[in-house]
Amino acid sequence: MDKIPCAVLGCTGLVGQYFVKLLLNHPFFEIKLLTASEKSAKRKFGESVKWMLSEDIPKELMEMVIEVTSVENILDSGVKVVFSALPSSIASDIEKNLMKNGVFVFSNSSSNRMDEIVPILIPEINPDHIKLAEAQKKKFGGFIITNSNCTTSGLVLALKPLLDFGIKKIFMNSYQSVSGAGRRGLPSMDILGNAIPFIKDEEEKVERETRKILGILKENSIENLEVEMFVNCCRIPTKIGHLESVLVELERDFTLEEIFERFKSFKGEPQNLNLPTAPESPLIVRIEEDRPQPEIDSEAGFPERAKGMAISIGRIRKKGKYLSFFLLVNNLIRGSAGGSILNAEFAYFKRIIGG
Amino acid sequence: MDKIPCAVLGCTGLVGQYFVKLLLNHPFFEIKLLTASEKSAKRKFGESVKWMLSEDIPKELMEMVIEVTSVENILDSGVKVVFSALPSSIASDIEKNLMKNGVFVFSNSSSNRMDEIVPILIPEINPDHIKLAEAQKKKFGGFIITNSNCTTSGLVLALKPLLDFGIKKIFMNSYQSVSGAGRRGLPSMDILGNAIPFIKDEEEKVERETRKILGILKENSIENLEVEMFVNCCRIPTKIGHLESVLVELERDFTLEEIFERFKSFKGEPQNLNLPTAPESPLIVRIEEDRPQPEIDSEAGFPERAKGMAISIGRIRKKGKYLSFFLLVNNLIRGSAGGSILNAEFAYFKRIIGG
Amino acid sequence: MDKIPCAVLGCTGLVGQYFVKLLLNHPFFEIKLLTASEKSAKRKFGESVKWMLSEDIPKELMEMVIEVTSVENILDSGVKVVFSALPSSIASDIEKNLMKNGVFVFSNSSSNRMDEIVPILIPEINPDHIKLAEAQKKKFGGFIITNSNCTTSGLVLALKPLLDFGIKKIFMNSYQSVSGAGRRGLPSMDILGNAIPFIKDEEEKVERETRKILGILKENSIENLEVEMFVNCCRIPTKIGHLESVLVELERDFTLEEIFERFKSFKGEPQNLNLPTAPESPLIVRIEEDRPQPEIDSEAGFPERAKGMAISIGRIRKKGKYLSFFLLVNNLIRGSAGGSILNAEFAYFKRIIGG
Amino acid sequence: MDKIPCAVLGCTGLVGQYFVKLLLNHPFFEIKLLTASEKSAKRKFGESVKWMLSEDIPKELMEMVIEVTSVENILDSGVKVVFSALPSSIASDIEKNLMKNGVFVFSNSSSNRMDEIVPILIPEINPDHIKLAEAQKKKFGGFIITNSNCTTSGLVLALKPLLDFGIKKIFMNSYQSVSGAGRRGLPSMDILGNAIPFIKDEEEKVERETRKILGILKENSIENLEVEMFVNCCRIPTKIGHLESVLVELERDFTLEEIFERFKSFKGEPQNLNLPTAPESPLIVRIEEDRPQPEIDSEAGFPERAKGMAISIGRIRKKGKYLSFFLLVNNLIRGSAGGSILNAEFAYFKRIIGG
Repeated sequence: MDKIPCAVLGCTGLVGQYFVKLLLNHPFFEIKLLTASEKSAKRKFGESVKWMLSEDIPKELMEMVIEVTSVENILDSGVKVVFSALPSSIASDIEKNLMKNGVFVFSNSSSNRMDEIVPILIPEINPDHIKLAEAQKKKFGGFIITNSNCTTSGLVLALKPLLDFGIKKIFMNSYQSVSGAGRRGLPSMDILGNAIPFIKDEEEKVERETRKILGILKENSIENLEVEMFVNCCRIPTKIGHLESVLVELERDFTLEEIFERFKSFKGEPQNLNLPTAPESPLIVRIEEDRPQPEIDSEAGFPERAKGMAISIGRIRKKGKYLSFFLLVNNLIRGSAGGSILNAEFAYFKRIIGG
Repeated sequence: MDKIPCAVLGCTGLVGQYFVKLLLNHPFFEIKLLTASEKSAKRKFGESVKWMLSEDIPKELMEMVIEVTSVENILDSGVKVVFSALPSSIASDIEKNLMKNGVFVFSNSSSNRMDEIVPILIPEINPDHIKLAEAQKKKFGGFIITNSNCTTSGLVLALKPLLDFGIKKIFMNSYQSVSGAGRRGLPSMDILGNAIPFIKDEEEKVERETRKILGILKENSIENLEVEMFVNCCRIPTKIGHLESVLVELERDFTLEEIFERFKSFKGEPQNLNLPTAPESPLIVRIEEDRPQPEIDSEAGFPERAKGMAISIGRIRKKGKYLSFFLLVNNLIRGSAGGSILNAEFAYFKRIIGG
Repeated sequence: MDKIPCAVLGCTGLVGQYFVKLLLNHPFFEIKLLTASEKSAKRKFGESVKWMLSEDIPKELMEMVIEVTSVENILDSGVKVVFSALPSSIASDIEKNLMKNGVFVFSNSSSNRMDEIVPILIPEINPDHIKLAEAQKKKFGGFIITNSNCTTSGLVLALKPLLDFGIKKIFMNSYQSVSGAGRRGLPSMDILGNAIPFIKDEEEKVERETRKILGILKENSIENLEVEMFVNCCRIPTKIGHLESVLVELERDFTLEEIFERFKSFKGEPQNLNLPTAPESPLIVRIEEDRPQPEIDSEAGFPERAKGMAISIGRIRKKGKYLSFFLLVNNLIRGSAGGSILNAEFAYFKRIIGG
Repeated sequence: MDKIPCAVLGCTGLVGQYFVKLLLNHPFFEIKLLTASEKSAKRKFGESVKWMLSEDIPKELMEMVIEVTSVENILDSGVKVVFSALPSSIASDIEKNLMKNGVFVFSNSSSNRMDEIVPILIPEINPDHIKLAEAQKKKFGGFIITNSNCTTSGLVLALKPLLDFGIKKIFMNSYQSVSGAGRRGLPSMDILGNAIPFIKDEEEKVERETRKILGILKENSIENLEVEMFVNCCRIPTKIGHLESVLVELERDFTLEEIFERFKSFKGEPQNLNLPTAPESPLIVRIEEDRPQPEIDSEAGFPERAKGMAISIGRIRKKGKYLSFFLLVNNLIRGSAGGSILNAEFAYFKRIIGG
């Protein structure tokens, strides 16, 4: 089987680097094009990127010359599948333009997420939302599929198995790592030994994306889940992995045994289809009294290729109709690059890209 | 005026060191006795203590020989006022024994807090609870007055001005600094770059202490405040200052202006009496979008002697009948040593100690 | 006595903020002008600055409107004394231009330090180098006096009392805090839990500045100290305070007692003149086995106004003709803003500014 | 081939955990016995250990019951090969006793390292020192082979290829991670945002072990390398990986090209024998201006099983006859457990254990 040539847009940032790392030796995709802003482009990847990861990158990729991110350059390359780690400020236009020119865009950018023709796809949760992409493809030739905000991704995966119990209210407080702000996003003077109880636009994103992702596909649009949400986001001096304290008021009574069982046995389409980046168990239940922890659980996920794709859940407790727990999501893998790659694998399997 | 001689029990630990620091040049009290466990005792304070604070301690104190913590040693010294930073495991017996021997104990230990004859005193909130101590004194000669758990102290100070609105439910998530675990409590390997979503017994303490502190004195006992509480405590790699994300469901409708006004104008007995350690404003409202922060706001409190005694409150928001905000409390000053010293000053003013 | 009106150039950065803080209630100087880049200017200081310090700034200063940094604006203001925290890229031209227009510039910028007519003044070490400024004044009307690089300042203060022994070789390894890179200089992703063994141009600066500062004034130029230097600079995740491991090969034999005595008794002109920002003892010798430490010793210096102006020295050891020790310098106070203010106080006393 | 049954002594500490992790699926060895102190023993490994690593341990190991560390228990088990992560205080007696009872001890403890019959083996450097073990075996039936102190191991590996140039003086300053102090060794209050310029006995260990490891085997004893050493050790808030700034005065002149070539091409017996834990290149030269860094380079080593076994060297510079560079060593793998396992593999290949 020939691999599908693909591009990574915004390859020098943190999410871009994770795209590159996770696409190495990918069974379906092969990087043929790397793009970045004018400042970084026209140089070899190995010279331009400030590589943050411990893995060594193969020589041929290190020597690939980065192109300037532009619709023209991407179309010229002939690549049909692109992974976008573009900053929000420029992502919206470029991605839409690509879509209208027949390109399949898997985007980590927040710019187009709330567009009603664009799905926020998490195939364990809302595999049918991919129909929005099919509709785009029919109309425009290409499509945009987004993954959710990193904080949202952990939350909705944990909420999905609880939907049957009727979710009345969601209270969430986050303990977010600095990598969520990007490679240069957060000065060390601000966060060293400190906590910052404010992340611009984050709480709003979590609320609206949660409602959309857990919403129901009606014709060609999503009917949002109706639920009251109280979200507070805070940055702490951890490097990778967002910890979230979740409290959910459920309509139906429940036992902790039921909840444990739901979490543990939870599987979705990626597991059924055995997608390469799908973790065997998307939700890993920790019974230790003090888990999950960013430094220990960020790499959760089995097998090897799915490391960082599983959510760890611990301290599961019940108080009347309230269920509370802590969860940990790898914001750079499940919450960003890995999420988009899983979406592309799912699209590939659904035959809306490739072949 | 002669100063009242006092003792610091458990003087080598972190809270003990803060007692020593805050009692230096105190207008009412003077340290005459320092005690510690057998391991640290019998040596000069300056040689035995692993001094963690930047201030230099006066030579006469550095050379004071530490005595072993024992009821006998304390009674022998003739000191009538003691500040206790004893570990919970031994505090209960020693403090009760002292109380029965006519000593006035201001304790930071959690052991006796829930004893029904012992008040958890925060004089801005429940000055009348000091009557429990008067009752003890009448019966036993001495008394025990406790300050609250460090996390609780910030929470209840912020809740007090909200009582009029009727508090139905309290949701609190903490971001607690490592100093809360004591000087050697938390290994660096556990917390460096990490977050630990579990602090033994902390959530229970916050819940029950909150109900007692905000409770009503009836005859000689406290009728707890009835309120549903959902508390989740998490340790993060900050050094001093506990950040708390608070969400309160109120019975009565409110405007943000009202709340701002209540917080800003809040004062209590310590302010009226102009106690030395009382901050001019116990609650400081921050209007910046990203405050309070441990590294910036832990020393809040005016004047100089009240540094670390004020609670900083920020990100005050409203969603229907829910009020949310972040607060910061200095866990070692307002939440521990400073809280106890304020209690002693209040007791002194009420003439139940001294003269 | 009327205070001398002064300006702080580059007032929103970290060093600029320290200038503002340290000039509050200064007995000689009074801030009349604040300048910053176009991005920050034209707004009130309180709204434009991202204030990093815990002190509250008086209302009148918070409401002072920041002007754009330009020679014209500064000359228009009529202010004769300026403290410059300008970035190196623009400092050289502006400062020289001001000097030629009769302004007295006390600069923290590195741009002009190696100019042969400009002294790097540390009045405890080379008070006579101020004659270079007098020569500038005679020729141009104004002058530039620089303080040294932050890392250098600690090193040379510790070396000064050793000059009599004959310094043959200096080996220095630094453990530098992130604040040395400025407010936004170092992304948290780079340094959290990490160490970076490279600081651009730092090693070169330390070597050449050390030779100049310890050099001898000959006519109107400095004859550098001749000494072999081996300097390695490394960034570590501390916030304030540069730790330095120093090893010196001395020509003359010595005893540790002599060295202790030299360090402890070391005083210079600022101490003799009792300058407001001068620490009683510029070198504080620590005898504990594990000091100095950034978190404990960065505020060293007595009295209150001289906090952060003293160097702490510890672990003093001897191996043959080699003397080794660790030192700690507050890079933002003695190493930056405080150093320049001490220089201005010294110039004031020498009557080359003011009256 | 049957695997050799082995024991891990002190299995619950940090080094013990690394022994367990690195021995999983080892081609030569298989864990048959786990021991710990009375406090941790008699319980299943999975319940007793505070597991710090992200890998999941196989169920059969998690359920293995830990025995109390005692000579009797170990002899009773019939295991002949033990890996010792015992604390120094008890290691000396137990290890010697085991050796005299025919057991082959690979020890990470410092207690017996300087014993003249015990080699500090690093098979890339001093493979012939294993003859000391053979002599022990002949005399006592068993033997003790130690690996070096973690800081020493990085230093001597980098020095070995320089021996030909004649090493006159060694200047080393370390930037050591907190894991070097063991799991509970360093309280977070001491090191968070701080640096501590003192590690008990470390400087002495590095000096004497370096001389012994680089010494020459004469009959049945080691003649130490004669070299002047100036070592300063400092703890910084990194988690894993010791950074070292090394300056060496060489007798013979050299070019940087020579040095690069020596470092890059350096190989030893483990590489020739293709031992499982041997890294292809023990010394990895980094040409980036700011490497090595603990957070990026601690896992250096290829292939997979040798991760953490290679030393990264960067910033290689020359000043006259002085060569300077920074190196990074994984203190828990090459510097502890991995070093001992490599020694056991080497002993196995030399047929002094097994068969």
